[in-house]
Amino acid sequence: MAFKEDLKTKSAYIEDLLKQYMPKEEGYQKTIFEAMNYSLSSGGKRLRPILTLESAKIIGGDVKEVIPFCVAIEMIHTYSLIHDDLPAMDNDDFRRGKPTNHKVFGDGMATLAGDALLNYAFEIMLKESLGKENSDVRLKAIYEIARGAGIYGMIGGQVVDIESENKSIEKEKLDFIHMNKTAAMIIGCMRAGAIMGNACEDDLQNITKYAKNIGLAFQIVDDILDIVGDEKALGKPVGSDIENHKSTYPSLIGLDESKKVATDLIKEAKDSIRKISGESRFLEDLADYIISRDH
Amino acid sequence: MAFKEDLKTKSAYIEDLLKQYMPKEEGYQKTIFEAMNYSLSSGGKRLRPILTLESAKIIGGDVKEVIPFCVAIEMIHTYSLIHDDLPAMDNDDFRRGKPTNHKVFGDGMATLAGDALLNYAFEIMLKESLGKENSDVRLKAIYEIARGAGIYGMIGGQVVDIESENKSIEKEKLDFIHMNKTAAMIIGCMRAGAIMGNACEDDLQNITKYAKNIGLAFQIVDDILDIVGDEKALGKPVGSDIENHKSTYPSLIGLDESKKVATDLIKEAKDSIRKISGESRFLEDLADYIISRDH
Repeated sequence: MAFKEDLKTKSAYIEDLLKQYMPKEEGYQKTIFEAMNYSLSSGGKRLRPILTLESAKIIGGDVKEVIPFCVAIEMIHTYSLIHDDLPAMDNDDFRRGKPTNHKVFGDGMATLAGDALLNYAFEIMLKESLGKENSDVRLKAIYEIARGAGIYGMIGGQVVDIESENKSIEKEKLDFIHMNKTAAMIIGCMRAGAIMGNACEDDLQNITKYAKNIGLAFQIVDDILDIVGDEKALGKPVGSDIENHKSTYPSLIGLDESKKVATDLIKEAKDSIRKISGESRFLEDLADYIISRDH
Repeated sequence: MAFKEDLKTKSAYIEDLLKQYMPKEEGYQKTIFEAMNYSLSSGGKRLRPILTLESAKIIGGDVKEVIPFCVAIEMIHTYSLIHDDLPAMDNDDFRRGKPTNHKVFGDGMATLAGDALLNYAFEIMLKESLGKENSDVRLKAIYEIARGAGIYGMIGGQVVDIESENKSIEKEKLDFIHMNKTAAMIIGCMRAGAIMGNACEDDLQNITKYAKNIGLAFQIVDDILDIVGDEKALGKPVGSDIENHKSTYPSLIGLDESKKVATDLIKEAKDSIRKISGESRFLEDLADYIISRDH
């Protein structure tokens, strides 16, 4: 319970940061600002920016220095959701109970709002890095985020996920999707946070392992919840994977074995994060939360 | 004639660079690489990367250092064209005589290919900047490009342009569109090149003025060509602006006055670039070419 309160507080903190960095809704191009801010304000757990902050914190870095990175990461996550929801992609009308971006602003403006958020994410990270002494460290941190979000990361995973719809695929390909679609960005966020905190190579490896494992476990739990989950808690119907003949962890290796793999991943994640000398309680609880969540 | 040959040589050089930086078409996410490379290989004058190179060159900078920036800038330009052509935006089936990206790869993959090119542009600039001594300068240069491409630049102009379709708008708004949709990115490219060459503040101001003026003149000439242009040379029908009741320079201030404004902008651009001590011949000729072009 204490963890859930803690998570709420941290999410609220990220909400505040986002508000500070949202473009002012004024000027000729006002509509794009409104479209960006609409989706940025749509809630969510803000897991990626929290992980970035916590990564810097456990290393002993200056958390304030990471703030623009947290904001940028949530902008990148938000752009990916806006484009995912487009009619050309998943064609979703609602997200978190609100009409999707293109339902409010139209397909063209939603496409541009996504583009705008991706570009603005880099603009913020770069601008806030000008004139600082650790330019080399900052370039590395921004690069980690770009890589996690790109064709050898999130976009790469997204492409293979789309192409695998209604198809049965082998486990190796499913692991590729999980690794790239979700884990890569989490790795990028946490490595960026740790790099900004001047992590040593050992700590960076442990952070990377933690990030990778919780990312992979998150996806496996997603697959499991589509079978055993509670529709009310999830806020969406279960069983859609089976209906769509989607290859998932349970369909490929069975439900029990899937649970075991997820449990092992989380155990390893916690072992890794405990090796770092900083306070690891929150990140350990977060790992447990990922596997015990019901939505 | 010598200038046109020179321009061709420089375009061919950029083509070669692009090929070196294109992602290899292999791995599970092969389709996205194919979609990116399809549009990257679709030709064009490669004006923006050439301007970036020339900007570094006139300042006396190391041209090799600017190569990743040139490639990234053309990737950003290409992403903007792919998204522009989407059914949700301009709905164009052909570009430079070839089917547009979404006609070949589908709307979803074309959306992702655009996202991928924008993200990969930053990934390249950042990656190639790691471990270099001038990190602070590189952050500044990448920031200039991000700003030129973003909501206070290219995307901002694009939004207002879309919202002004089939509407009569005031000259101030038209200038905003021209300034942001085209000039901002050219300014970003040339400032990035100059910054990488360690330009002094005076030179940077003169480069900025040159870039702004040729960008604005380019758009005014576009408007003029839609009235007096030759359909064959342009490769598209003329008169569409009048048909669509589009507010243009000629419709707002008349054809002769439009020509005069464009001529003055080009003259000022040449005056500015001549103030820099480096060899300015090519950039002067390029300015003349922009106003004398027939397509």
